[in-house]
Amino acid sequence: MGGIRGLVWAVALAAMVSLTAASAATDGAGAEAIHVDADGTIHVDGLAVPVSDFLSAPARAQQSARLIRPPAPVVTEAGVKDARAGTDAFQQSVADRWRAVYPARIEPTMMNGVKTEVITPEAGIAPENQNRVLINLHGGGFFAGGGGAGGRAESLPVAGRGRIKVVAVDYRLAPENRFPAASEDVEQVYRALLAHHRPEQIGIYGCSAGGTLVAQSVAWFQKRRLPPPGAIGIFCSGAMPTFWYGGDSFAVTQMMNARLQATPEQMRDGAGTLYLAGVDGNDPLVTPGLFPEVLAKFPPTLIITGTRDSAMSNAIVTNARLLAVGAETQLFVQEGLGHGEFATLVGSAEAAQAYDVIWRFFDRHLAK
Amino acid sequence: MGGIRGLVWAVALAAMVSLTAASAATDGAGAEAIHVDADGTIHVDGLAVPVSDFLSAPARAQQSARLIRPPAPVVTEAGVKDARAGTDAFQQSVADRWRAVYPARIEPTMMNGVKTEVITPEAGIAPENQNRVLINLHGGGFFAGGGGAGGRAESLPVAGRGRIKVVAVDYRLAPENRFPAASEDVEQVYRALLAHHRPEQIGIYGCSAGGTLVAQSVAWFQKRRLPPPGAIGIFCSGAMPTFWYGGDSFAVTQMMNARLQATPEQMRDGAGTLYLAGVDGNDPLVTPGLFPEVLAKFPPTLIITGTRDSAMSNAIVTNARLLAVGAETQLFVQEGLGHGEFATLVGSAEAAQAYDVIWRFFDRHLAK
Repeated sequence: MGGIRGLVWAVALAAMVSLTAASAATDGAGAEAIHVDADGTIHVDGLAVPVSDFLSAPARAQQSARLIRPPAPVVTEAGVKDARAGTDAFQQSVADRWRAVYPARIEPTMMNGVKTEVITPEAGIAPENQNRVLINLHGGGFFAGGGGAGGRAESLPVAGRGRIKVVAVDYRLAPENRFPAASEDVEQVYRALLAHHRPEQIGIYGCSAGGTLVAQSVAWFQKRRLPPPGAIGIFCSGAMPTFWYGGDSFAVTQMMNARLQATPEQMRDGAGTLYLAGVDGNDPLVTPGLFPEVLAKFPPTLIITGTRDSAMSNAIVTNARLLAVGAETQLFVQEGLGHGEFATLVGSAEAAQAYDVIWRFFDRHLAK
Repeated sequence: MGGIRGLVWAVALAAMVSLTAASAATDGAGAEAIHVDADGTIHVDGLAVPVSDFLSAPARAQQSARLIRPPAPVVTEAGVKDARAGTDAFQQSVADRWRAVYPARIEPTMMNGVKTEVITPEAGIAPENQNRVLINLHGGGFFAGGGGAGGRAESLPVAGRGRIKVVAVDYRLAPENRFPAASEDVEQVYRALLAHHRPEQIGIYGCSAGGTLVAQSVAWFQKRRLPPPGAIGIFCSGAMPTFWYGGDSFAVTQMMNARLQATPEQMRDGAGTLYLAGVDGNDPLVTPGLFPEVLAKFPPTLIITGTRDSAMSNAIVTNARLLAVGAETQLFVQEGLGHGEFATLVGSAEAAQAYDVIWRFFDRHLAK
């Protein structure tokens, strides 16, 4: 209990508590130098960010390996197709690993003209889930994850954990297709399932672009005068502008993932060049988070993100906006994990935790 | 929809989705240079972090002003008392501003030998709150915030928003007192209130050290075979080791608040030098987050933190641990705000939002 340490602690606490009495010793700290502009922009040099000490040892090792992996070469004009192929191959590898954990039947099925895969766990459908079904909308930036790979990766663990049927929608992608192609495809699958299920027996979830598409679909159903589903999951994403960017998490998570990608302007303008090219974002069908009257009719919503997820700020602002209009939400932020990482840490404690939360949420809110 | 911007977007998305295809262009990015150690520790230079664009204009202005404020001089041996005086003065100024928003009667009251202040809103107690009461445990690192200032700052907005009676506990502080003095004081106040209320009509909340003390008190009640309260709020804190530090938020929020304070070792060792000097943290009465069997008996728990709160990681891990044992929680993470900042942004949209969430949570879970 050295006096100077106690004093440092006291100073730190005072700063934290009072927000006025901060010390700024520039030695021995986690960063070397800080400068603040008049608008509050902080410039920092020499910052060191270790892998979170709250992570399990396997997750820590896996994340260290991810962070030290050399970045891929810069993509050329053929970029979209290459990026799609790379993403699809990775998602299929994740799907293969999940299928070893949770064996399942995978049946390609057309529903009202839309390609889907129906994932049925080999362990059987649980008695309470006989009349329930989940719809998965895969991630991949609205341009990748199609052809089944993304849907399998995201559906197998949920189907297996919940012992429930999951319909993975292989919705149309950009740049070949544009908004609202994906919303139209989700509507058709939802209509097909409504022939056999009450809406409150149906849940919809997705990660990243899939999470945004979940929110867009709920707004789309409102416009089409379709009843809302029983519960939804918006994972690794949000319903506010820029969807999986924006706010504090945009400012720090590129650094926290050791990936320097683009300026905010490039990312935001880029958002318009593919699926949402030329689309006005000030529309509840595109950015439902901006429209309280639309959010007020959302069903119970589970929002999942992580401290290294570029979408964290968008996700938590979406959560706050839903709460503000009286919607029922559950927010789950995972420590130390990046964008959608819970889904790729196959077999880890962190993944098990996320799928427990997901399944308990749907089990609590879906009618039997 | 320039081709190169689309490609940058595609690359970014591929990196986000696949976690393998990341580009690392070191130009035009938010940071200048990144190096990663073999253990995954990231070193970064030239990072720029603007105030969150999701914040309201007044909150943005207030945060900019806070961030550019010159740091206080380094504290000397007289540090604890100076830090206490500074914190108390700041908390009283916050209390004065809240009292202008929510006028209230403040009555010093001894309860079973413990000093409290009873805060009663001048707008009157709402009909549904006639038999309900909240207990506030103020923040201040277990060494400051006493004498009423901290309790008033944290109780006035809750009493006013909810139109409910709040009992602010002026529990004993370090370094004059040590663990478990504060838990003992909370027990006495709780016992006094149990004479007039059913436990499910009583809620307990606190921020920072007060949030940790809420969690410690629930464990303490278990040991004393007292019934749990109806609901609790752990704000700006957590129930895991280091309480308002640890994990990713420890690594980045010093930087995000432009305050360089101490090394992890100094902060962690420091934690033991005041209230918890020489105390074994591996005890549910100290660190309840480590004990699933204790957490499983927690009442419904609201956890509030912010993206610039040093306690964010501790708070979200506490939330995850509670969920893992089937406890009922609500997590609310506020975008762009630092440690306990919702309580000090008097009159802002962000403060109103936080107190709405707090009040709705207690109204939902407390018996009438």
